[in-house]
Amino acid sequence: MTNILNQLPGVPEFVGTAAADTIGLVIANVDEQLRSRMNLDLTYPTIGLIGSRTGAGAQIKAVDDAAKMSNIEVLSIELPRDTKSGGGHGNFIIIGGKDVSDVRQAVELSLKLIDQNAGELYISEAGHLEVQFTARAGKAIHMAFGAPIDKAFGFICSCPAPIGMVIADLAMKSAGVELVSYGTPTQGTSFSNEVVITICGEADAVRQAVIKARETGIQLLCTMGEYPDPVKTPYL
Amino acid sequence: MTNILNQLPGVPEFVGTAAADTIGLVIANVDEQLRSRMNLDLTYPTIGLIGSRTGAGAQIKAVDDAAKMSNIEVLSIELPRDTKSGGGHGNFIIIGGKDVSDVRQAVELSLKLIDQNAGELYISEAGHLEVQFTARAGKAIHMAFGAPIDKAFGFICSCPAPIGMVIADLAMKSAGVELVSYGTPTQGTSFSNEVVITICGEADAVRQAVIKARETGIQLLCTMGEYPDPVKTPYL
Amino acid sequence: MTNILNQLPGVPEFVGTAAADTIGLVIANVDEQLRSRMNLDLTYPTIGLIGSRTGAGAQIKAVDDAAKMSNIEVLSIELPRDTKSGGGHGNFIIIGGKDVSDVRQAVELSLKLIDQNAGELYISEAGHLEVQFTARAGKAIHMAFGAPIDKAFGFICSCPAPIGMVIADLAMKSAGVELVSYGTPTQGTSFSNEVVITICGEADAVRQAVIKARETGIQLLCTMGEYPDPVKTPYL
Repeated sequence: MTNILNQLPGVPEFVGTAAADTIGLVIANVDEQLRSRMNLDLTYPTIGLIGSRTGAGAQIKAVDDAAKMSNIEVLSIELPRDTKSGGGHGNFIIIGGKDVSDVRQAVELSLKLIDQNAGELYISEAGHLEVQFTARAGKAIHMAFGAPIDKAFGFICSCPAPIGMVIADLAMKSAGVELVSYGTPTQGTSFSNEVVITICGEADAVRQAVIKARETGIQLLCTMGEYPDPVKTPYL
Repeated sequence: MTNILNQLPGVPEFVGTAAADTIGLVIANVDEQLRSRMNLDLTYPTIGLIGSRTGAGAQIKAVDDAAKMSNIEVLSIELPRDTKSGGGHGNFIIIGGKDVSDVRQAVELSLKLIDQNAGELYISEAGHLEVQFTARAGKAIHMAFGAPIDKAFGFICSCPAPIGMVIADLAMKSAGVELVSYGTPTQGTSFSNEVVITICGEADAVRQAVIKARETGIQLLCTMGEYPDPVKTPYL
Repeated sequence: MTNILNQLPGVPEFVGTAAADTIGLVIANVDEQLRSRMNLDLTYPTIGLIGSRTGAGAQIKAVDDAAKMSNIEVLSIELPRDTKSGGGHGNFIIIGGKDVSDVRQAVELSLKLIDQNAGELYISEAGHLEVQFTARAGKAIHMAFGAPIDKAFGFICSCPAPIGMVIADLAMKSAGVELVSYGTPTQGTSFSNEVVITICGEADAVRQAVIKARETGIQLLCTMGEYPDPVKTPYL
């Protein structure tokens, strides 16, 4: 999962790396000037940083689960326009804690979970597709998308945007799901070439909607060229 | 032009693909929750989706012409920051109609026209150039750029931005053209590395201005490396 | 440094090219309609254009120094979301002057300096790092970042953002430096996957802070894959 080096010689901030060009770092005590510009809560002297060139759902769900099992808070979630030469997002997530080892463990756990979640990130030359599902949304997912905490949650996204829209529509036509957020290139994204929706509802309904969206999205990406490969092993 | 498959087995929404990583899709009846979030006019139960990883002018002009010949409305035009690893835009266009076959035909026609218009989209490793010309602007061009309907219209754009500015200036110094819109990386674009102008005027004047801009733009892109290749056969 | 052609046949606007896909151009007399849309100061009939696909600090520092030695004004600095398939910025800088040869010389000088400054721009497959240092900030640096004129100035930036944050923190913990600007994917950047800070203070302190940030940034980029190569010869 994480880099072989548990700690890079001379760089105590280093925690590890994960799929989709992800790095995890810890700053034990953020500089005062920087802290005031970041508007960081003073309760958390230590911050953990998780960021990737590619993906959003995989990493937010990873941090969401890590936060449930750790003594940390999710402080901010930002989505740059990235995915290298792709048409989507990367991510930059900051967590905070009172204890360095708590934060370091939460970052390590997040990296491990990103490697799992990246199984539902599919990339081809022409575009990409990402779906995520969790039976119980936590604080990170709530912060990022406004999804209700403790309810089942699904993330559905594809580039180019028309594919994203068709699979969003298919997912919404599944029984028993509710629309949480809706993003397009100029609304709720960082000008990415995607339609992104998030949904909530009963666990089985959300899971079925996400799987249905994934199957059609992969078929549509195939019409534009090669089969989109999952970054890791699919989990759904 | 479009994909060999007239309709993808199991994906009735599929219409076809075209140059510049373009896909065309149709949703016969948009889901109610999605529709309300999209602020879609209830008059049009069926929507057509056209979107590309690369280009803006080619696709907007294609939909503009398709709309003249079809019983559909142009509902929205969005320009993500894309062109794959290039410095420009992709596009995401939604059209609406009362009849599924009307919308499907308009999407098919748009895809055919995108293949033609992509002839004036030139791409090199260092940058790109796109010009478009129509003797008569319609609804899509008016919506996207504010150009006067039924007047001749020209689109001129290049990356990196300095080349776009020089060819914009050359085009404007042609006799008889008027500036419609002006875009730079932080004004009127999605942070693309381009200067983009649109012009109107008498057909001959606009056509000459566009051709002059194209010739100089290609010469300047050549100073940065290889000759920029047209995506399809140039039409001007 | 600049392109072999001192002037491209038929394109009198061409000045030259430089590292990081940079081009320099001059427009002797900007078209009136374009000028009014650009909100250009009428005092400067001639404009010089410098723009690159990759980098921001290198080019802003180059124009900053060129402006100190020339009879020109810096009119605007824009940062598109670019770096080709990278996660950072390109740039588009406009300078103005009363005399064409003044402006042409300033563009030529800027191109030469960009080739030098690009030595502190490091790029790998996974990300990038850029640092810049000047003992005396001038008008371009003040315009771009709000840094105090005539004071030592440092620019520190890395992608992905977590690396940028760790080296920003390290730089700020150096003795004697003050934070000037702070940028993240959704604050003060064009949705780039970076943390970007600028600092000021005593020359030695700023230089040490910048070098410290660079060393750690390179080490962290190495954990994500290959060693990041400088675009030109490092100067610090």
